[in-house]
Amino acid sequence: MKRFVDLADMERDAVLDLLALAARLETHPEPHALAGKILGMVFFNPSLRTLSSMQAGMARLGGNSFVVTPGQGTWQLEHRLGAVMDGDRAEHVREGIPVLASYCDALGIRAFADGKDLAADLAETQFNAMASLVDKPFINLESAINHPCQALADWKTMNDLAVPTSGKFVLSWVKHPRALPLAVPAATLHMAAQRGMEVVVLRPDGFALPDAIMDKARRAAAASGGSVRETDNRAEALQGAQVVYAKEWGSTRHYGDAAADAQLRQGLGDWMVEESWFGGAAADCKVMHCLPVRRNVAIADHVLDGPRSVVLREAHNRMPAQMAVLHRLLATSR
Amino acid sequence: MKRFVDLADMERDAVLDLLALAARLETHPEPHALAGKILGMVFFNPSLRTLSSMQAGMARLGGNSFVVTPGQGTWQLEHRLGAVMDGDRAEHVREGIPVLASYCDALGIRAFADGKDLAADLAETQFNAMASLVDKPFINLESAINHPCQALADWKTMNDLAVPTSGKFVLSWVKHPRALPLAVPAATLHMAAQRGMEVVVLRPDGFALPDAIMDKARRAAAASGGSVRETDNRAEALQGAQVVYAKEWGSTRHYGDAAADAQLRQGLGDWMVEESWFGGAAADCKVMHCLPVRRNVAIADHVLDGPRSVVLREAHNRMPAQMAVLHRLLATSR
Amino acid sequence: MKRFVDLADMERDAVLDLLALAARLETHPEPHALAGKILGMVFFNPSLRTLSSMQAGMARLGGNSFVVTPGQGTWQLEHRLGAVMDGDRAEHVREGIPVLASYCDALGIRAFADGKDLAADLAETQFNAMASLVDKPFINLESAINHPCQALADWKTMNDLAVPTSGKFVLSWVKHPRALPLAVPAATLHMAAQRGMEVVVLRPDGFALPDAIMDKARRAAAASGGSVRETDNRAEALQGAQVVYAKEWGSTRHYGDAAADAQLRQGLGDWMVEESWFGGAAADCKVMHCLPVRRNVAIADHVLDGPRSVVLREAHNRMPAQMAVLHRLLATSR
Repeated sequence: MKRFVDLADMERDAVLDLLALAARLETHPEPHALAGKILGMVFFNPSLRTLSSMQAGMARLGGNSFVVTPGQGTWQLEHRLGAVMDGDRAEHVREGIPVLASYCDALGIRAFADGKDLAADLAETQFNAMASLVDKPFINLESAINHPCQALADWKTMNDLAVPTSGKFVLSWVKHPRALPLAVPAATLHMAAQRGMEVVVLRPDGFALPDAIMDKARRAAAASGGSVRETDNRAEALQGAQVVYAKEWGSTRHYGDAAADAQLRQGLGDWMVEESWFGGAAADCKVMHCLPVRRNVAIADHVLDGPRSVVLREAHNRMPAQMAVLHRLLATSR
Repeated sequence: MKRFVDLADMERDAVLDLLALAARLETHPEPHALAGKILGMVFFNPSLRTLSSMQAGMARLGGNSFVVTPGQGTWQLEHRLGAVMDGDRAEHVREGIPVLASYCDALGIRAFADGKDLAADLAETQFNAMASLVDKPFINLESAINHPCQALADWKTMNDLAVPTSGKFVLSWVKHPRALPLAVPAATLHMAAQRGMEVVVLRPDGFALPDAIMDKARRAAAASGGSVRETDNRAEALQGAQVVYAKEWGSTRHYGDAAADAQLRQGLGDWMVEESWFGGAAADCKVMHCLPVRRNVAIADHVLDGPRSVVLREAHNRMPAQMAVLHRLLATSR
Repeated sequence: MKRFVDLADMERDAVLDLLALAARLETHPEPHALAGKILGMVFFNPSLRTLSSMQAGMARLGGNSFVVTPGQGTWQLEHRLGAVMDGDRAEHVREGIPVLASYCDALGIRAFADGKDLAADLAETQFNAMASLVDKPFINLESAINHPCQALADWKTMNDLAVPTSGKFVLSWVKHPRALPLAVPAATLHMAAQRGMEVVVLRPDGFALPDAIMDKARRAAAASGGSVRETDNRAEALQGAQVVYAKEWGSTRHYGDAAADAQLRQGLGDWMVEESWFGGAAADCKVMHCLPVRRNVAIADHVLDGPRSVVLREAHNRMPAQMAVLHRLLATSR
């Protein structure tokens, strides 16, 4: 493996192999596997879990890491090709990224969506331009439309909890004060489809996922024996669900239009996960979320603090999942 | 030892054992004692000594560490229970803290006092709420009303300098442009009392330490054979003193009232440590301070740059003192 | 070697030895050479290459490092002697710097020029005051008037590319939106002179390098058999050049006067490196730059993306060059 950018680049069996390695490293640490190896990470956007679990994961495998945060201790980086750089941005990614790559054995980049032009975000224009400048093993730490580290950890979490691979998985839109990127919903949808699950996207009018995202997930479902559909009927969606994966995202009908997005979500206050969602139809249903989560906006306290919630387990699984990725990218064959 | 939160949680003999370990690690390093161990640190407030000495101390014992600074590369964290999180804070400590704890072998947290409600600060409400979410070895990197790492380093410094355990220790209020927290004065007072010293709190009117802090120190003094009293008479306090520990803190009479506090400190310009304080009555007296110190506001240049000052030694002792704590929390018995 | 502050402190042969070590470490890593050693770094100014290459270099030699960034997670530090510290700066370098030095085995400091008083900047007043407080091996990570890590990496780059030691080296002023410090031009000029090259400083009227900088470089040239002169005639300068080292700096005629500096650079738009500069007179000429570089302001895209540019190699060489410095400062003789 040379790049970990999108679970869709991997055959389902290759993902299963990676998950097996994650499970093995969790119980049988290899404290010298990456001795002398260095991971560089560039965060164009804030991070808590990725920042800390990546550093901890490298250290647990005997490696080291360094972190660069443009705008904090480092200047802002320019992305535009052909730019006349007479403004605030002191360095272009065409220099900055290959230079950082030259100091480390693997480079990870986090760069969120611009949230203005849906086609550009779906095409991962900015992220792919940076990725193409890296001639080392490379990790997507969350891009405009993907978050493979999160998806791998979530898959592991469902395996840990013995959620059937053919189980019903509801990806439900939930409320948030602002429009958030499509990275996690797109990655989650594809992961559940690739796992072989019966996937239902539950979302209000105006928040349908783009065709490109749905079609890609349907192709994964077709290959794995799963299925993908969407609805705005909560009762029907939750019937028999094993998992509700709550996630916030911006209106796709008004992509990049904050005012129209805000107006659309005015009447959607009941899109917060509460115990009353489950009833008899989904008694044992687990609630997942990638975190950070707005308590009492996206999910009620009593759900997060109750037995349905597996959000801490998901977050913890970031570390062994990423250790498997790092191991596969960097460990010397012996 | 599972937690290092307050020296008052430990018997005096246990502190002496810890100090013996600190002295041993200073002269006989154990570069592999914490191999493979990871310390996570969360700084809700700025740090220079704690940040660097903790990282250096872990590295000297063969371990690793990661640092999370909410608001800098990581979003702000919410503390309030039951909050409807529709504002700026993206994540609750109820998720953030246990997640970070799940990546490391020990977690340290720094969270200063709010400085508004004395009872809440004395109760360590916010800090204890976070501490209760951690199921790993845990370190107080400075809380509303405590700073055990500093206190341990200061105790070691007095041992290094052969200051008698029954010596006279004056904790003197000194000037600062603003009201500062009670963490260091409270921790210092208790440390000196627990060491068995004759402790005098020297402070102007309006700056008496709260009863809860004084009473706790008196209990420690009773157990160790020391004593604790307070005064505003500088000449009497300094008579025969072995140590003046200079420290700034806010008015306790006007706790949380910045305007009243500022007015009270207007006339207190002579509460700056100068050579003239000592004279014949305390000729060999040492001057201590936890740093950072405002030169020529709290302590005059000529004192800090002269032979009385042991502030650099105190700061250096943070490292071996904390190495002892980390060793006790994390080293596997062999 | 106890300090790495200025290449001018070293005999030419000692620099050649250091470069030989850099080349050796590049091909024959020594992953345990600095086991247990700790590098502390204080960045008063932003960094990308220095920050990451230093951390990576220490890790590749088996050591560890910590980073302190005053104003980001740490308070601002005061430099002025005798200051009454009743303002924003919470700690004086007279405490902060020796404390940090006491936690590590070598300390590095980056502190740019104030850019107001040329004599004070040329005298390295602020930097030397801090350096004098450090009793450990010490590294200049860029000061008001020097950048020895960059200069060493650039020298290595020319060796790697087999640029003759007697070759023609043109240090050319190039455009930038603002006045930048003299650190890199001064260090580069001295490095090329010390290497023994025919050095030409090409700069517009008002941007002549200060006599102190020119004279120091001339002394190095005299010792190495090289030469140093200046001109504003581009065609003559480029004739037969093996290297054009592009660099931005502020007007020395109007040092510290931003308005006059800005007016002076208004008519200097053609001071951007373009392919047309080279023609037949310097067909094989390489283009160097320390980075970060403003694309299409200082150097045109087509030059940076073309075969003349060796800027990525220079940046990469920061790591092995600094590894040699760290090795010389910290490795125990065996």
